[in-house]
Amino acid sequence: MRRVQKQSRIPIYAQLQEIITEMIDNEELQAHDSIPTEHEFCAFHDISRMTVRTAIMTLVNEGVLYREQGKGTFVAPKKPNYQLSGLKGLTAVMEELGYDVQTKIQSFAHVVCSKKIAHIIGIPVGQKAIRIQRLRFVDKEAYALETVWIDPEQYPNLTESTVEATSLYDIFRDTYGLIPAYTRQIVTPVRLNDVEKEFFALMDEPLGLMFERTTYTEDDKVIEYTKSVYRVDKHQFEMYLQI
Amino acid sequence: MRRVQKQSRIPIYAQLQEIITEMIDNEELQAHDSIPTEHEFCAFHDISRMTVRTAIMTLVNEGVLYREQGKGTFVAPKKPNYQLSGLKGLTAVMEELGYDVQTKIQSFAHVVCSKKIAHIIGIPVGQKAIRIQRLRFVDKEAYALETVWIDPEQYPNLTESTVEATSLYDIFRDTYGLIPAYTRQIVTPVRLNDVEKEFFALMDEPLGLMFERTTYTEDDKVIEYTKSVYRVDKHQFEMYLQI
Repeated sequence: MRRVQKQSRIPIYAQLQEIITEMIDNEELQAHDSIPTEHEFCAFHDISRMTVRTAIMTLVNEGVLYREQGKGTFVAPKKPNYQLSGLKGLTAVMEELGYDVQTKIQSFAHVVCSKKIAHIIGIPVGQKAIRIQRLRFVDKEAYALETVWIDPEQYPNLTESTVEATSLYDIFRDTYGLIPAYTRQIVTPVRLNDVEKEFFALMDEPLGLMFERTTYTEDDKVIEYTKSVYRVDKHQFEMYLQI
Repeated sequence: MRRVQKQSRIPIYAQLQEIITEMIDNEELQAHDSIPTEHEFCAFHDISRMTVRTAIMTLVNEGVLYREQGKGTFVAPKKPNYQLSGLKGLTAVMEELGYDVQTKIQSFAHVVCSKKIAHIIGIPVGQKAIRIQRLRFVDKEAYALETVWIDPEQYPNLTESTVEATSLYDIFRDTYGLIPAYTRQIVTPVRLNDVEKEFFALMDEPLGLMFERTTYTEDDKVIEYTKSVYRVDKHQFEMYLQI
């Protein structure tokens, strides 16, 4: 194991994080191996237990390591990739990879949205939008919190029970004839708030990725606007880009 | 202004953050408007100055607000988008948008890399790779820290001064006949470390985005592997995805 450099400007916990990551990259530590104890890290590097904990908890939150109560800390197996290319929803991608994907509708309501969102989905400011909040699960584990805004006039008679039963893209396509052709997604790093942390069952101060997605038909009509927060400890987000 | 809900599970600072963001989205606050003072937020919501500061500093770090010494806190103009679609480097994208983009080579060295990187760029484990560390600036402002790893046998006679003068993609293409056809990029949220914070001149605990990019030729030969950290307070990262 490489030693931390105490005179470096890079904080010690960040150096230790990098050292552990290197040991995994170098296969000195393999999936499900237990890592050295906190005590061993402290003794080897002559650093405080607090520093070691910070490094380890950061890696746990990133999904590089995992903990088992009373047993220790272990190297997590490699994360599967979410492919962000193409237009398939992540649900479709995960299902193709053989995962069991579940969606739970948390709320379905007609609400006044912000001017920004009204402009995006093309409704007059002050008029109500349909807002759908969804919880997404992969193999029974929470992986995303989504809020979808759509124009009620574009989707007459849409009800919560329809949305419970079928994928939104299928409803847009099959019931309303709106065929998704492309999306624009803005990706932003976020700190998860208490509600998100509880939903994902994560501790300390985990980070997540927020995607703000606008989906369009071939003739540039907006189908939906969605804000999603994803955990990043279980999956990688990969983009495949071509000329 | 909407009031914070004290009995909510969402932390007060996060609620205040959302309220300010809404006021901007709703155009109650416009670009370069000064926002209410800390004192006004405290009095209106009956919350502590600490809470108000946390909300405001988070929004400053995200680039939603900006501060001017002795003058106050203002709404930042909208961030330009970095288009992540297509294969053009961000530099090319920014130049097309009329920005002045500068690159500074921080180091150019032959180093032993991790097994993982050796596998990716296709060199035997333990053999040295060329590692190039670059600082990127837009309109004189730091915007990215990049580390590139390449196979020295693929790029004989490559020197630091060549790399100083020309874009890497141009060198790969024109000098070595390796034409970039597609990339795979993994995107991860990160906390900026002290070195990164200093480089970007950011305070407190800003987040950033890390992109790990592998670039391939049409026949799937790896051209380069790059790890980049970008600030997110000045630009948005947008992906355009088609079926």
